[in-house]
Amino acid sequence: MSGMWGNKLKFSIFGESHGVGIGITIDGLPAGVEINMEDVMKEMARRAPGKSNLSTARKETDAPEILSGFFEGKTTGTPLCAVIRNADMHSKDYGKLKDLVRPGHADYPGFIKYNGFNDYRGGGHFSGRITAPLVFAGAICKQILEAKGIIIGAHVKSIGKIQDKSFDQIELNKELLNKLKCNELPLILTEKEDEMRNTILEARKDGDSIGGTIECTVIGINPGIGNPFFDSVESTLAHLMFSVPAVKGIEFGKGFLMSELRGSECNDEYYYEGDKIRTYTNNNGGITGGITNGMPILFKACIKPTPSISKKQRTIDIAEKKDSELVIEGRHDPCIVQRAIPVIESVTAIGILDLILNA
Amino acid sequence: MSGMWGNKLKFSIFGESHGVGIGITIDGLPAGVEINMEDVMKEMARRAPGKSNLSTARKETDAPEILSGFFEGKTTGTPLCAVIRNADMHSKDYGKLKDLVRPGHADYPGFIKYNGFNDYRGGGHFSGRITAPLVFAGAICKQILEAKGIIIGAHVKSIGKIQDKSFDQIELNKELLNKLKCNELPLILTEKEDEMRNTILEARKDGDSIGGTIECTVIGINPGIGNPFFDSVESTLAHLMFSVPAVKGIEFGKGFLMSELRGSECNDEYYYEGDKIRTYTNNNGGITGGITNGMPILFKACIKPTPSISKKQRTIDIAEKKDSELVIEGRHDPCIVQRAIPVIESVTAIGILDLILNA
Amino acid sequence: MSGMWGNKLKFSIFGESHGVGIGITIDGLPAGVEINMEDVMKEMARRAPGKSNLSTARKETDAPEILSGFFEGKTTGTPLCAVIRNADMHSKDYGKLKDLVRPGHADYPGFIKYNGFNDYRGGGHFSGRITAPLVFAGAICKQILEAKGIIIGAHVKSIGKIQDKSFDQIELNKELLNKLKCNELPLILTEKEDEMRNTILEARKDGDSIGGTIECTVIGINPGIGNPFFDSVESTLAHLMFSVPAVKGIEFGKGFLMSELRGSECNDEYYYEGDKIRTYTNNNGGITGGITNGMPILFKACIKPTPSISKKQRTIDIAEKKDSELVIEGRHDPCIVQRAIPVIESVTAIGILDLILNA
Amino acid sequence: MSGMWGNKLKFSIFGESHGVGIGITIDGLPAGVEINMEDVMKEMARRAPGKSNLSTARKETDAPEILSGFFEGKTTGTPLCAVIRNADMHSKDYGKLKDLVRPGHADYPGFIKYNGFNDYRGGGHFSGRITAPLVFAGAICKQILEAKGIIIGAHVKSIGKIQDKSFDQIELNKELLNKLKCNELPLILTEKEDEMRNTILEARKDGDSIGGTIECTVIGINPGIGNPFFDSVESTLAHLMFSVPAVKGIEFGKGFLMSELRGSECNDEYYYEGDKIRTYTNNNGGITGGITNGMPILFKACIKPTPSISKKQRTIDIAEKKDSELVIEGRHDPCIVQRAIPVIESVTAIGILDLILNA
Repeated sequence: MSGMWGNKLKFSIFGESHGVGIGITIDGLPAGVEINMEDVMKEMARRAPGKSNLSTARKETDAPEILSGFFEGKTTGTPLCAVIRNADMHSKDYGKLKDLVRPGHADYPGFIKYNGFNDYRGGGHFSGRITAPLVFAGAICKQILEAKGIIIGAHVKSIGKIQDKSFDQIELNKELLNKLKCNELPLILTEKEDEMRNTILEARKDGDSIGGTIECTVIGINPGIGNPFFDSVESTLAHLMFSVPAVKGIEFGKGFLMSELRGSECNDEYYYEGDKIRTYTNNNGGITGGITNGMPILFKACIKPTPSISKKQRTIDIAEKKDSELVIEGRHDPCIVQRAIPVIESVTAIGILDLILNA
Repeated sequence: MSGMWGNKLKFSIFGESHGVGIGITIDGLPAGVEINMEDVMKEMARRAPGKSNLSTARKETDAPEILSGFFEGKTTGTPLCAVIRNADMHSKDYGKLKDLVRPGHADYPGFIKYNGFNDYRGGGHFSGRITAPLVFAGAICKQILEAKGIIIGAHVKSIGKIQDKSFDQIELNKELLNKLKCNELPLILTEKEDEMRNTILEARKDGDSIGGTIECTVIGINPGIGNPFFDSVESTLAHLMFSVPAVKGIEFGKGFLMSELRGSECNDEYYYEGDKIRTYTNNNGGITGGITNGMPILFKACIKPTPSISKKQRTIDIAEKKDSELVIEGRHDPCIVQRAIPVIESVTAIGILDLILNA
Repeated sequence: MSGMWGNKLKFSIFGESHGVGIGITIDGLPAGVEINMEDVMKEMARRAPGKSNLSTARKETDAPEILSGFFEGKTTGTPLCAVIRNADMHSKDYGKLKDLVRPGHADYPGFIKYNGFNDYRGGGHFSGRITAPLVFAGAICKQILEAKGIIIGAHVKSIGKIQDKSFDQIELNKELLNKLKCNELPLILTEKEDEMRNTILEARKDGDSIGGTIECTVIGINPGIGNPFFDSVESTLAHLMFSVPAVKGIEFGKGFLMSELRGSECNDEYYYEGDKIRTYTNNNGGITGGITNGMPILFKACIKPTPSISKKQRTIDIAEKKDSELVIEGRHDPCIVQRAIPVIESVTAIGILDLILNA
Repeated sequence: MSGMWGNKLKFSIFGESHGVGIGITIDGLPAGVEINMEDVMKEMARRAPGKSNLSTARKETDAPEILSGFFEGKTTGTPLCAVIRNADMHSKDYGKLKDLVRPGHADYPGFIKYNGFNDYRGGGHFSGRITAPLVFAGAICKQILEAKGIIIGAHVKSIGKIQDKSFDQIELNKELLNKLKCNELPLILTEKEDEMRNTILEARKDGDSIGGTIECTVIGINPGIGNPFFDSVESTLAHLMFSVPAVKGIEFGKGFLMSELRGSECNDEYYYEGDKIRTYTNNNGGITGGITNGMPILFKACIKPTPSISKKQRTIDIAEKKDSELVIEGRHDPCIVQRAIPVIESVTAIGILDLILNA
């Protein structure tokens, strides 16, 4: 009841971190769409770890193999399934470790939900690795959207307390958004990169991790997309966003700041720019009444600090039913924000394309 | 593709503000559940306007009539439909007003989506009035949840810049949550009521409106409820929350604050309290990996200031395709936060009950 | 998980035979569609009983009231809900009768499914009366389809052993199909009417009932509509058809007769008629591989004899848990086939329109 | 909107006959279910061709590889994906053949639906080969059902005009149903085998094919399973059955024969056998009002003759837009009925398990 999502487009995800493979089936794609596989691979590379000391040194070569729904370089219109085989894991002896549930992870709730039968290795189905198929699917959706003039882009809005500018303070265009995709830490104020990098490395040095926020935008989208009850644009995007591990908050437009403002400060007043309808401000993030109003969609998502840290933590031993302590070994991502960016963009593309095709 | 939601429980909503009636069909309710209709009516009264000068003076007697699925005081297990007839509206002459799209409202995106055929009167299907059936449905779900020991409660977390305490700073229990339901402005720090009330009345005096935030909790829920991709507890609740007009942000647990913290500060460490598993902190708001961990679910939703204000606003005339100005007459809610509380609680009840029945 | 159906269009049905009212919500209708309510009422009259001695003398004035989604004579694009209030039933004392489960009816399985809490009066939610909202919804769908040049028609293919001709033996056109709608017993070979009528009246005289078959066609539909796994045209129509009480079989094209034939006899060979692609025969009933091929859709549905008969029947008393006997009093439909025709046409319209809008 | 099906269980199918691979993802399986993979393979072998001269000599080694959702011999509760790689096809030159649409196949409607972009080789996504993943999924569902005491069995009811006895004429039990699974032509009257075999071989000799019917039963199922509108047991099974290529009709219980009978002949009268409720007859095939009544579910499905025949057929050339002729070369199944039996059983298992888990 959970691994499938969508209305006109449908997505069926599967896989565990240390199982045979992970993947996704996409149904409902239009037939005859050319897919630039090189660009798909570039998107997947953005999510992959091991690019710098900001992420885990673990290497993942996420090479998806398309099994179906793709013929002579184009979509066939039938379900497209792509599989990424997991590298041959040296199935290390988890021993007692598997009974020491990791704080901040899904180990304990997953153990309860699945009665202890789930594949716990490396987080199993809860692993961030399962977002790789989402990036694959998102990359395809992005190409279809781009052909309609719709571009999705995102940047690191903050790492810890270090803040970048907001998208609503600058002029948004395709070139800028595509340029952001080239940086490991995509920023509007590139001069903030060192500070952010240091914040991450300090956390790493301390055997700790740090959170951040991502701001995402969709430009070029027509007004009139979305629904009132129950499938507003916000509902659709938030639903998908909270499928991404580590996301704990989302706000559209000015978001939580709106709670401090008055209606006269929040309402986006309309005007004609030629025969195009625009608003002077974009406090509502391009969505009013759950429906796009033609202005850029804007939202921010909060990414919690990676729960895997090297510091000793108090936890329980669920087998022996007693309190215990845990030290997680191995190399971990001191910050997941930068790797989450292509994932956030991807589920945005998935949601927006479904809304458009279903309109 | 939008007016129906749910998995094991299904909800089908309908109605326009100035049409014949509004209502909801609930399918999948267990058979044989006694419903206390007096309590349902109390919940509906909480949402109704006209209780004080904090809301519009408009009177709505939201008396739902159950048409089906209810027999001899109990649910039958078949679809339960309830209808609330709209009072006989003196269909005022909207004249040119209908072409002056109201900033912050769905008038313009709705006009585009429905090609101008939607019932624009009073916001039509986008009206906050359509949340009355949600409160009806939520009241039934709450009763079923309460029989399972699960209680949902909420309070005004802020009005403008005036802040109440947070739920994670106090001991949560059924009595406290039920007590909150009795106040128009439910607060932990009741001494803040005057300040909040004044903030609202000042906005009103200025022909303006003010936003706020609502904090909501679910106590007594078992661990193991929810799903990884794509129907996490957060996904489910956020999806429903963003169906409620005026909600522009949601954060679980410490939410956006987590972006500034380190893993060692955010991770909720486990311990045994007798044979019950608990965490020392509840920064994750009772949900890890998308699944409940047995701690209270905690989230905050941001409510934007009511877009209907008396101040003159710039807008466009979509019929004449030119810039124009608009003054919205009549009495409006200077703040919608307090009336939104039972709605937020209701969609929470709807989402949680569906997750539980579908587990 | 049962009272709602549809993909691009969604239908949510509710009601019990002797409850307050019955009805349906239709979501996903295009905005701006004019609905001829007079024609809708004509369709509803076709299903209503009391027209002759072929059906029960019970009078039902199925006047639907549209509560929402309809404004100034046109659909708004938002959920359209219509309610039919049940006449004020003199809630007769069912006494012991309610424990004597009627053979052929859903009394016993319904009792088990709903733990005895369902509204048993007059069949409750299982009553054929609940098909009235389907006819309402179907009438709207038919009007939308007709504007696309798609006409649905049906006739009595057989009553007992008396057979009418088949649609594949004649030239199908709009005039013929519309003419069929004017007769209580719509037939190709009108000379069979007396024989059929007598067959029904004889069953009636004997306190018994008789079954029959209905043949239905959809003309004017484009090729390419439908899906392979899992939503073929046949799957969609069969799913809906078996929601209609009393339907126990469906066959497309030559149907079960194909089991006796060879491939060379069943395959429909193609040819060009001008630039239009047609087949010499239509053994597959206009559908190959689950998808329309441009020929008329043809299927037959089997309608079992009305289970309500006057004859004494053996049954059980579920309260006292012992064998018993039952005589059902009152006036019953000696044959339901003719009244089922507009229902079969309606769910066909519902299914076909959803497939087309979702294509 | 088509490649995914299910409510509590969800199935996502993919693949083309001559693509890289085919497969299925099953979501919603209970966690901790042991799967006997040897039995799964036996079921897959029943569907595989090449066992005798009744089917094509083509060899398929349908070895499914489980990629996820399966750990230490048990289901994990997360999506289980299985892939069957297609053997390395010598991608023969289809040349002009691909433009000569095969009568009785989906070539033409598929071409229209997918704008010519679908993988046409060997029928592509419409190929009967795509039922192999359904048999895989069905085999797992059967094992779960069997643990609940529910057994599904089927036999060849007819080949051409040669008829076997019906299930309602004999005593049904687990042993009988399991014994039927061992024969290529499972029959109650085994003495009919030669006649049936000859009927098939004669068709083959003539370069033709022959149809038949399959009767299927589900024993051991509790009463109270299923739904009224819209997801009756019949709706659910028929929906799935018509996803199986070549099925053109389905009837439950006495089915179309009921159209000739009177109510007093069709109604199944109840009696107590000890404290168990049974009916003297089972004309309704174990389902009344769309819900199981505790008697065996009985239905028959009609399988049309394989459309691939060697005889010369008239068709069109869709590239040159003119009439043409076609001779399909290679070895074909002269009869598909016996190979369809495990498929019919499998989709029955899929539908019944979903209904039970969703009850």
